Amino acid sequence: MYAPGDVRVDHTDRPTVVEPTDAIIKLTASCICGSDLWPYRGADQVEHQPMGHEYVGIVDEVGSGVQTVKVGDFVVGSFFASDNTCEICQAGYQTHCVHRQPGALPGAQADFARIPLADGTLVATPGLPDDDLIPSLLAASDVLGTGWFAAVAAEAGPGRTVAVVGDGAVGLLGVLAAKQLGAERIIAMSRHADRQALARKFGATDIVTERGDAGVAKIRELTGGLGAHSTIEAVGTQESMMQAIGATRAGGHVGYVGVSHDVQLPGEQLFFSGVHLHGGPAPVRRFLPELIQLIWDREIDPGQVFDLTLPIEQAAEGYQAMDERRAIKVLLTL
Amino acid sequence: MYAPGDVRVDHTDRPTVVEPTDAIIKLTASCICGSDLWPYRGADQVEHQPMGHEYVGIVDEVGSGVQTVKVGDFVVGSFFASDNTCEICQAGYQTHCVHRQPGALPGAQADFARIPLADGTLVATPGLPDDDLIPSLLAASDVLGTGWFAAVAAEAGPGRTVAVVGDGAVGLLGVLAAKQLGAERIIAMSRHADRQALARKFGATDIVTERGDAGVAKIRELTGGLGAHSTIEAVGTQESMMQAIGATRAGGHVGYVGVSHDVQLPGEQLFFSGVHLHGGPAPVRRFLPELIQLIWDREIDPGQVFDLTLPIEQAAEGYQAMDERRAIKVLLTL
Repeated sequence: MYAPGDVRVDHTDRPTVVEPTDAIIKLTASCICGSDLWPYRGADQVEHQPMGHEYVGIVDEVGSGVQTVKVGDFVVGSFFASDNTCEICQAGYQTHCVHRQPGALPGAQADFARIPLADGTLVATPGLPDDDLIPSLLAASDVLGTGWFAAVAAEAGPGRTVAVVGDGAVGLLGVLAAKQLGAERIIAMSRHADRQALARKFGATDIVTERGDAGVAKIRELTGGLGAHSTIEAVGTQESMMQAIGATRAGGHVGYVGVSHDVQLPGEQLFFSGVHLHGGPAPVRRFLPELIQLIWDREIDPGQVFDLTLPIEQAAEGYQAMDERRAIKVLLTL
Repeated sequence: MYAPGDVRVDHTDRPTVVEPTDAIIKLTASCICGSDLWPYRGADQVEHQPMGHEYVGIVDEVGSGVQTVKVGDFVVGSFFASDNTCEICQAGYQTHCVHRQPGALPGAQADFARIPLADGTLVATPGLPDDDLIPSLLAASDVLGTGWFAAVAAEAGPGRTVAVVGDGAVGLLGVLAAKQLGAERIIAMSRHADRQALARKFGATDIVTERGDAGVAKIRELTGGLGAHSTIEAVGTQESMMQAIGATRAGGHVGYVGVSHDVQLPGEQLFFSGVHLHGGPAPVRRFLPELIQLIWDREIDPGQVFDLTLPIEQAAEGYQAMDERRAIKVLLTL
């Protein structure tokens, strides 16, 4: 991304092993993330930046210190590299690993990428996947793992009513995660017919089209005046955060994963809401083994969030389609 | 309180039963809360306001609808009245009860008070308590229950390092709660020798005198660079909230109970901190049966936070002593 709105496909050299703990992977597929739209829209600074942080691929080379990952393995990683051994990783917060680094260098919208801390970061699939599993495995790398973390942070589970703020790929996969975690009722907040349809396919029982205070009022109306037990926030704006907090009952849980942009939470309102708030950059690595198995066993099909597939040469068109909400998520073939 | 800084002791009529679910109690002792200092200092509006929301006493009269509380019972209540039967109460969030009301009307710094929803709000002790238990039972009514909730919200427990921001009665009793909940290490943040001493008596293993960023740095230094697992926030200012969030490791828990005043939490900093945040007005009622039993069995002695006892006629002097931090907490005899 040369500048906001200016995406080009350039030639770069294949990255090489720098640290002995690195692996080089040949990507099987890549994709564009909703969070890539922040710089695309000028909300984050960007200047000639290699893009992409979601990836699946085949290990092409490993450094001398790599012990478990082998050349030829089909692997899934995520947007932060982690050692998976430090106290923070062991507690399940690999995105805050004391040795964390960017997950794919210089970027994962490319044929090859360098993955630091390969043993801690990459999870191998049981074998080479069938082609039809590739989109789902790629989704596990970020949007599924992030939606899953949001649902876990929101304590979605049996007997719970879960509200989902945001109908992008992460919000939709938050619906899928809530369903898998056993939620009784799942209310998706969406105004777009195609996203509503996918939300229902993933397990949404109700759709709310209202936003902001009206959205909060509607959720309260649907929950006997109390609010949802669990709310997934997958946008990252002031309005979406306040909508999530307002939609949640006292003692309930908000799981927020939309990358915060210009958000200031009013202390008094938060205090008197009585909700639990947990989120941040999702420790996707914590969930990868479980998610890969669910995909491998064809229990879940998160790859359905990719509703536009383009060759990487047309990446600029992919960004534009997501920016204009013509596509939920774009898969880039290599 | 006629105005900020202006506390007077007036005669008022004994309150009477208004709703059939009311009880009238004759207070055995009363006290001044740290939160009473907000209006005293002009940070909250106040105009000719009866004060006090912490109470123990003997039931003097009950309404026709009161079924479990009996005249002559010695009871402990709290700052919100709750039915203790609604879905929110049953989930342990009685301070957000769908029928919640002020806990003691017109105020608990008085000889008598009207307690709404008496059956749901009041908890009777096993019998008439010995005089030396009165301060501890009175503490259970708010500051102990609030410190306890903060420790529970912060998930203090075995193997955990707990940091405590705030050395008022609530923070000190947060130390006591963390100790009771089995915390391995308890770091009290305090600059006052008398409060440090009481913190140590209640179970603090370390004292940190630094505040703000320096305080955060010190907590990180004491915890291998990671931060505390659990942090209790018992102040309610911007500085104390950011200190609590900064002192907590990713994936750790902040339990905040200081009533928020002019706090705005920066979304991005919160997002990337990866902490859990939970708090608000403490559902003291949830903990009262357990806390009363611990006091009754002389397992804990939270009444030690009262370091100044005055007859209620000298309430104004009590407010002044707490405002000037000459006293941690003032007990008013009736």
